[in-house]
Amino acid sequence: MNRDEGENPEVGTLTGDEVAKHNSKDSCWVIVHGKAYDVTDFLPEHPGGPKIILKYAGKDATEEYAPIHPPDTLDKYLPKEKHLGPVNMDTVEQEKKEDSPEEKARQERMKSMPPLEACYNLMDFEAVAREVMKKPAWAYYSSGADDEITMRENHSAFHKIWFRPKVLVDVEKVDMSTTMLGTKSSIPFYVTATALGKLGNPEGEVLLTRAAKQHNVVQMIPTLASCSFDEICDAREGDQVQWLQLYVNKDRKITERIIKHAESRGCKGLFITVDAPQLGRREKDMRSKFDDTGSNVQSGDKVDRSQGAARAISSFIDPSLSWKDIPWFLSVTKMPIVLKGVQRVEDVLKAIDYGVHGVVLSNHGGRQLDTARSGIEILTEVAPVLREKGLEGKLEIFIDGGVRRATDIIKALCLGATAVGIGRPFLFAMSAYGQPGVDRAMQLLKDEMEMNMRLIGAASIEDLRPDMVDVSSARHHGAGPTDSLSETAYDKLITPYQMLKSKL
Amino acid sequence: MNRDEGENPEVGTLTGDEVAKHNSKDSCWVIVHGKAYDVTDFLPEHPGGPKIILKYAGKDATEEYAPIHPPDTLDKYLPKEKHLGPVNMDTVEQEKKEDSPEEKARQERMKSMPPLEACYNLMDFEAVAREVMKKPAWAYYSSGADDEITMRENHSAFHKIWFRPKVLVDVEKVDMSTTMLGTKSSIPFYVTATALGKLGNPEGEVLLTRAAKQHNVVQMIPTLASCSFDEICDAREGDQVQWLQLYVNKDRKITERIIKHAESRGCKGLFITVDAPQLGRREKDMRSKFDDTGSNVQSGDKVDRSQGAARAISSFIDPSLSWKDIPWFLSVTKMPIVLKGVQRVEDVLKAIDYGVHGVVLSNHGGRQLDTARSGIEILTEVAPVLREKGLEGKLEIFIDGGVRRATDIIKALCLGATAVGIGRPFLFAMSAYGQPGVDRAMQLLKDEMEMNMRLIGAASIEDLRPDMVDVSSARHHGAGPTDSLSETAYDKLITPYQMLKSKL
Amino acid sequence: MNRDEGENPEVGTLTGDEVAKHNSKDSCWVIVHGKAYDVTDFLPEHPGGPKIILKYAGKDATEEYAPIHPPDTLDKYLPKEKHLGPVNMDTVEQEKKEDSPEEKARQERMKSMPPLEACYNLMDFEAVAREVMKKPAWAYYSSGADDEITMRENHSAFHKIWFRPKVLVDVEKVDMSTTMLGTKSSIPFYVTATALGKLGNPEGEVLLTRAAKQHNVVQMIPTLASCSFDEICDAREGDQVQWLQLYVNKDRKITERIIKHAESRGCKGLFITVDAPQLGRREKDMRSKFDDTGSNVQSGDKVDRSQGAARAISSFIDPSLSWKDIPWFLSVTKMPIVLKGVQRVEDVLKAIDYGVHGVVLSNHGGRQLDTARSGIEILTEVAPVLREKGLEGKLEIFIDGGVRRATDIIKALCLGATAVGIGRPFLFAMSAYGQPGVDRAMQLLKDEMEMNMRLIGAASIEDLRPDMVDVSSARHHGAGPTDSLSETAYDKLITPYQMLKSKL
Amino acid sequence: MNRDEGENPEVGTLTGDEVAKHNSKDSCWVIVHGKAYDVTDFLPEHPGGPKIILKYAGKDATEEYAPIHPPDTLDKYLPKEKHLGPVNMDTVEQEKKEDSPEEKARQERMKSMPPLEACYNLMDFEAVAREVMKKPAWAYYSSGADDEITMRENHSAFHKIWFRPKVLVDVEKVDMSTTMLGTKSSIPFYVTATALGKLGNPEGEVLLTRAAKQHNVVQMIPTLASCSFDEICDAREGDQVQWLQLYVNKDRKITERIIKHAESRGCKGLFITVDAPQLGRREKDMRSKFDDTGSNVQSGDKVDRSQGAARAISSFIDPSLSWKDIPWFLSVTKMPIVLKGVQRVEDVLKAIDYGVHGVVLSNHGGRQLDTARSGIEILTEVAPVLREKGLEGKLEIFIDGGVRRATDIIKALCLGATAVGIGRPFLFAMSAYGQPGVDRAMQLLKDEMEMNMRLIGAASIEDLRPDMVDVSSARHHGAGPTDSLSETAYDKLITPYQMLKSKL
Repeated sequence: MNRDEGENPEVGTLTGDEVAKHNSKDSCWVIVHGKAYDVTDFLPEHPGGPKIILKYAGKDATEEYAPIHPPDTLDKYLPKEKHLGPVNMDTVEQEKKEDSPEEKARQERMKSMPPLEACYNLMDFEAVAREVMKKPAWAYYSSGADDEITMRENHSAFHKIWFRPKVLVDVEKVDMSTTMLGTKSSIPFYVTATALGKLGNPEGEVLLTRAAKQHNVVQMIPTLASCSFDEICDAREGDQVQWLQLYVNKDRKITERIIKHAESRGCKGLFITVDAPQLGRREKDMRSKFDDTGSNVQSGDKVDRSQGAARAISSFIDPSLSWKDIPWFLSVTKMPIVLKGVQRVEDVLKAIDYGVHGVVLSNHGGRQLDTARSGIEILTEVAPVLREKGLEGKLEIFIDGGVRRATDIIKALCLGATAVGIGRPFLFAMSAYGQPGVDRAMQLLKDEMEMNMRLIGAASIEDLRPDMVDVSSARHHGAGPTDSLSETAYDKLITPYQMLKSKL
Repeated sequence: MNRDEGENPEVGTLTGDEVAKHNSKDSCWVIVHGKAYDVTDFLPEHPGGPKIILKYAGKDATEEYAPIHPPDTLDKYLPKEKHLGPVNMDTVEQEKKEDSPEEKARQERMKSMPPLEACYNLMDFEAVAREVMKKPAWAYYSSGADDEITMRENHSAFHKIWFRPKVLVDVEKVDMSTTMLGTKSSIPFYVTATALGKLGNPEGEVLLTRAAKQHNVVQMIPTLASCSFDEICDAREGDQVQWLQLYVNKDRKITERIIKHAESRGCKGLFITVDAPQLGRREKDMRSKFDDTGSNVQSGDKVDRSQGAARAISSFIDPSLSWKDIPWFLSVTKMPIVLKGVQRVEDVLKAIDYGVHGVVLSNHGGRQLDTARSGIEILTEVAPVLREKGLEGKLEIFIDGGVRRATDIIKALCLGATAVGIGRPFLFAMSAYGQPGVDRAMQLLKDEMEMNMRLIGAASIEDLRPDMVDVSSARHHGAGPTDSLSETAYDKLITPYQMLKSKL
Repeated sequence: MNRDEGENPEVGTLTGDEVAKHNSKDSCWVIVHGKAYDVTDFLPEHPGGPKIILKYAGKDATEEYAPIHPPDTLDKYLPKEKHLGPVNMDTVEQEKKEDSPEEKARQERMKSMPPLEACYNLMDFEAVAREVMKKPAWAYYSSGADDEITMRENHSAFHKIWFRPKVLVDVEKVDMSTTMLGTKSSIPFYVTATALGKLGNPEGEVLLTRAAKQHNVVQMIPTLASCSFDEICDAREGDQVQWLQLYVNKDRKITERIIKHAESRGCKGLFITVDAPQLGRREKDMRSKFDDTGSNVQSGDKVDRSQGAARAISSFIDPSLSWKDIPWFLSVTKMPIVLKGVQRVEDVLKAIDYGVHGVVLSNHGGRQLDTARSGIEILTEVAPVLREKGLEGKLEIFIDGGVRRATDIIKALCLGATAVGIGRPFLFAMSAYGQPGVDRAMQLLKDEMEMNMRLIGAASIEDLRPDMVDVSSARHHGAGPTDSLSETAYDKLITPYQMLKSKL
Repeated sequence: MNRDEGENPEVGTLTGDEVAKHNSKDSCWVIVHGKAYDVTDFLPEHPGGPKIILKYAGKDATEEYAPIHPPDTLDKYLPKEKHLGPVNMDTVEQEKKEDSPEEKARQERMKSMPPLEACYNLMDFEAVAREVMKKPAWAYYSSGADDEITMRENHSAFHKIWFRPKVLVDVEKVDMSTTMLGTKSSIPFYVTATALGKLGNPEGEVLLTRAAKQHNVVQMIPTLASCSFDEICDAREGDQVQWLQLYVNKDRKITERIIKHAESRGCKGLFITVDAPQLGRREKDMRSKFDDTGSNVQSGDKVDRSQGAARAISSFIDPSLSWKDIPWFLSVTKMPIVLKGVQRVEDVLKAIDYGVHGVVLSNHGGRQLDTARSGIEILTEVAPVLREKGLEGKLEIFIDGGVRRATDIIKALCLGATAVGIGRPFLFAMSAYGQPGVDRAMQLLKDEMEMNMRLIGAASIEDLRPDMVDVSSARHHGAGPTDSLSETAYDKLITPYQMLKSKL
């Protein structure tokens, strides 16, 4: 480093050396986006535990910090007097960390990444993303609860439902537009809420906003976005529609503030997550953290950073949230309220009693309770009961989880869903190819949708009826996904020849 | 090249140089089978899009053109004044394109191709064809819609139906001949319509005609044949029977002309395809095109050449075709009319009401709507309803899809089908071994049929009865084909040991 | 060769040179076991076709001949005047044929063959036999009809039946002896009939006779044995019991002679095979013949040697055999008569009407009609109907097919079977280890049987009752064996990355 | 060796040379833990057969002896006069046996053993143990009966039961403590009895005692422990609860002594094993013994050492134990009595009639009768019958087998179980990582339990109700584990190309 540069910091600007002195739990400064902050007092409160912060004590933490904290986090949660002001970044020593062989291999794979045009379906984006995403990001997005049986069941459940198409129906003009919660959409899917968009792409969730605009589909804004709520609202254009996904804070005042702010910013629906009193254990994600920060399970530390990003950032969620809170939500907003994560017909009936406007039949993308049933299977339980009781149309039913093909969407709609939510596929498309990826993913769905509506003999969404699907095997679970972990661990029986060979 | 040859073209004959000047969309000439054509005005109308023609502007396009256009295409669709006459082919520069490593490997495999006698069943032809066919041809023939679940289900569905054979029945003489639509056949299968026969063999569909003659089975002539309709009729001998498969044109006058021509040429049945208002997306096929012409999905071009051959050549098909058109068909021909692609019992009942003579329970070889049910499964739904309603025999029921064994044929007949259609296996046999391949495939089916009729205890087709099969699992879908795409994309759970190994 | 030896044949003895002159279809001599025979006139009648004989015209055919013809064949079928007498074998040129690499590899594997003690169950014998048997023998024994789905289903069907064991039953003394067709057996299984025992071991079926004696189990003598019927009877000791399996000859006089001879030789049961009016196509077997003699499918030759050993030697079987022949059988013998290969309850009821003494519910080891149901599944259909109709005990019910474990035997007995037949496992044990192999296989079954009767809570065969098994999934066919041929032929979907890799 | 050392043994101490002279069945001395014993007369009585002792005649047998005999064995079973006193171990020649390549590879793997923190679930311990355990120990612990179908079914059966979670339930505080047989436990699982703990870790079962204390869970003490019963009791601390698992001895006096001793030492429950009148055949275990001592199956030796450790040490178990013995058990102890290994509802009803206090629905970890149903499946049979008959609560129902996840525990409790037993996972954890391993395994279960109770909507054990699970597929057996042995042995069908390749 050139000495002159190092010796002449701008007036009122901190140097790297000054910050570097505060590198312990007794005095802990960190640099984020070129500014220094004193987080000493904040250490014990950090939802992700103090350990991960101390790793960057006296250093620049931007790279680790940015994807998992919305930009307004420090303004919101750290008192102004702890904001120490700009740092002359030329004076901050850049850590040279050698890339791991794994990371090098990834960068090598990046060079021969297939062109976007080589992706012909939503699975393709997942396959590409798996090769080109950074490991922790891939692990966070792709992982599910426990054995990931529910996560995989979510998609394979659609394969237990088969079509009974009508022929000789005039399908020259196919209209796949629909209405959800009072607003029009070009096609009956929406971008559902998923956390930490910047792990996959530095621009984060606003890319999804822009792609959603382009295709006239609704976006649900996640509580745990990497972009701030306002950034995502600001990215909205024209009459584009957004909804808010809400994790309910233990402090209801914060929750009320969030809801009212969303309403004032024009959100058209409030989706309260009810399937996550605690965020799930996702072992693929936990494993990916292992080499970074070690484990402190034994330390008695209650919030264990090794349990993955989501659990660390979710300690505010209120596990005591219950039905008796619902009237309050209805009282504080005029937005239609939808319960996201309902999983049994009894709770759908209860939701009608409580006067909410909709439910999402969902298991949280297989990320919460393993061997919970898929949304589409729950729908086969719910829809006939509502029909029988004359309650059809009393509330809107959405499902999410495992939707990868337009045929999946069509099955859900035949069975009575208003629309389906799609999450991971757009994250993978965004992570691999940015906004054009999301755009192509949506276009592929539209192409598939138009064709498959024709092939099933439906010219409009109203034409999709229960008799167009055979659900007689829908709730059968003999032939779900295999249990890969157990199969890997199992020591197979061998024959005498193999026995001898294994001794050579 | 010898200069004298180059300098003395025949009178009235174009030279390669002259043609080569017209190599842009402003003036586009191409050579096909030694003659030049001015296709400039035709470019925007080309069903396969202008891009693929422009690739050959000013050049010889025969190799690409021939397999996917019947020889009378240019006469029919290009005005006479655009026919520029013969080209001295010695003056046309032959493009030397280096074979791809993939193509070289294929040619290597051709050298050790197994002798025909090594094929013992219909699957064997598929396995050989996969190794020796050119990639785009293999991709076009072998591909199915979306995840190819229905395509594979078509065959595996037969394995959910099990035999209840009778013993101690005199089966010394087995008569497997039958009658379909009023004509005799030596065995209850027919060669169903499949498109673009010249992709697999330069002679095309006429080879199937000749093999069908030899075995006294009916051939269905496809609308999208590589040979012209008349060529295929001309190849017929003696009292051989042919049917016409019809894609209905938006212009009914063209349709009427085709039907009346077929009737005048002696066709004995009209099979109207009703499961293809739009031709399906077959990703294996689309992928195989990728390296050839690039993709133009982003270009807004509505007919996307990268979507595979079939979709390009099928833009004429009328998606508004509906039940109300059926009386008109009955009015313009005396041929028995069969609806090909019916997929639910309600539509079979409707077909009876409309007075047609038959239906083919079919999902178009798994090439249209994925997770549509197999023909044999639909038959288990249809037959009991017809029996119950006393409508047996009111129309003939055919099925196609996945038939590979005589046992498959027998199951369909036990359940009430008149006959079954077989398509791909004959294409694969023809592609690998030419007409002797098709001949052997048919002979193998006959050998299997005779034996298996004996083993089930049936001396004639009439002896095949519903109580000879157990269909109690026929409509169960827990254990269908696995989802190979999803399984490949899925990131399996690992154990700690594998985790460490992967880091080495 | 030393000239002196060649010039001094024994008096009255032929020389190799003399025989070698008769090497065409016009004059065809062959040597078998040191004697010459003139088979010229017999060529067109040979059940295996003339081609295979002509391959040995003028030569020593013993090696090929011996395993597939009982020693008394030539005496029985070739007129005495065609028996040309002994040949001086020193004068016969020994063909030196180089072993194929495949055969060399097999001999290599023989060297590291596991000791007999390393076989702990019946599957182990199959696994060893597969490695050490000559290819055509392995192919003949191990193959099944078509896709071998029924063959594999036979075993896997047992896994759809689960135990409901009783506890706290005194099982100190376990008696597993039983009575079948009036004779005692130490354990309720018998050695069922299988053809061509010398393919696996030069001594053939008599080894099974000796092992059966040692364990006091019944042996069923096959019509198509390699040993002669009398050799197998002669090998019997003491009060050992044998039954006769009968393929019914078109010439009933021959059949009558066989039956009466068997009765006179002390056979205690007549098992008439009713599931084989024609012997099945077994492609594994057919394929194994391919390199030997080529194929003559195209030649019009009706009996095609390439179709495998069994079909060649079975042309005498009468396909017109029917129920109306049964009274005749009952009239010509006092032996109890059992129909082997019954596959539906209707035919069991018919068998009772006709007064036969038993049925074997069997699909012929999966070697005849593919996707025919397993014996154990048929039993779940038959037993409840007999109980309902009060016909229990009217005839004895046996099953065979897929029995590999004592638990399989126990399941059959719980469901009402008298005993089960076991075939292939003893052939494999004999082929790999000779008589000690068969002995150990039987001992293992006895050890398993004693233990498992204890574990299910049964001290005697009578204690095995229907409520000890749960058969609710027994007739479900969603999850049978996978279709290996179709899976191998199927071209799996690929992802973009795999696509690119495949291009490198 | 230094001569002086060899020549000066301590007074009254034997030398290695002296012992070494007694190396035959006529005079057989062995050294164990530094002391010599004359076992000549004991040879014929040794439950494991004389062969294995004679291998160590005149030598130090400690390494082989220790893991499979509790330390008080020699005191109990060998007369004092055969105790020959201490041996100067310096004078005993240490056999240098070269490690096998297999053992060397294992030691190599030990070096890169993953840290404990890398285990995130109970399967992980199994995967690590498989790599680092000595082969015979792994084989003994991991093996199951026959094809290990029941062993694997035990876990996969849980995957046929799916959750119906309640949402919007206040789950801030989750109480997972419960009461079993009158004593409190922090969580509804217990450490079930498993034999031969020292095979996995030299300290044996006391490690489990200590871990159980730390987590306040009950430990069941096995009859076949490697530690003595008293050692395990002595390791108990405070109010920790232990139960006794009992194999009933043919000599009821011994049984009575054991029961009364256990009661006097404070055991709070007596679990009588009723599913093991004879210990099962576990072929993986038998195979692992093969190279050690050879096989003597042919020798007529009734207790065959090659049948694995457990069968050798279990010859005392009484196979005549029956219901009529139950009153006697109730008369000799005040401990609650539980029948371990009940497998059908009829026997549960009988248990109620006999007045016992509980049953364990169990198949002995899949180690006894193969294709016996899983405990969880039996529970779906038992619980509704008890409810219907009003017998709920008449006795406590436990299940064991295949429990690997807290979701498995929750399913059992929803269906009516009081608690579940867990065995192998703790053995694997102990074998790989010692007590910290067991501790972490228990902690992981607690973490999973708390989270999953929240996610299913249950704040306490009482909240777990039958309507929270969908058991409609629970008794379906089409899609159980595949049959690995049969699949390995099966010779797959091949295509022509593969046929040719296999010839090259």
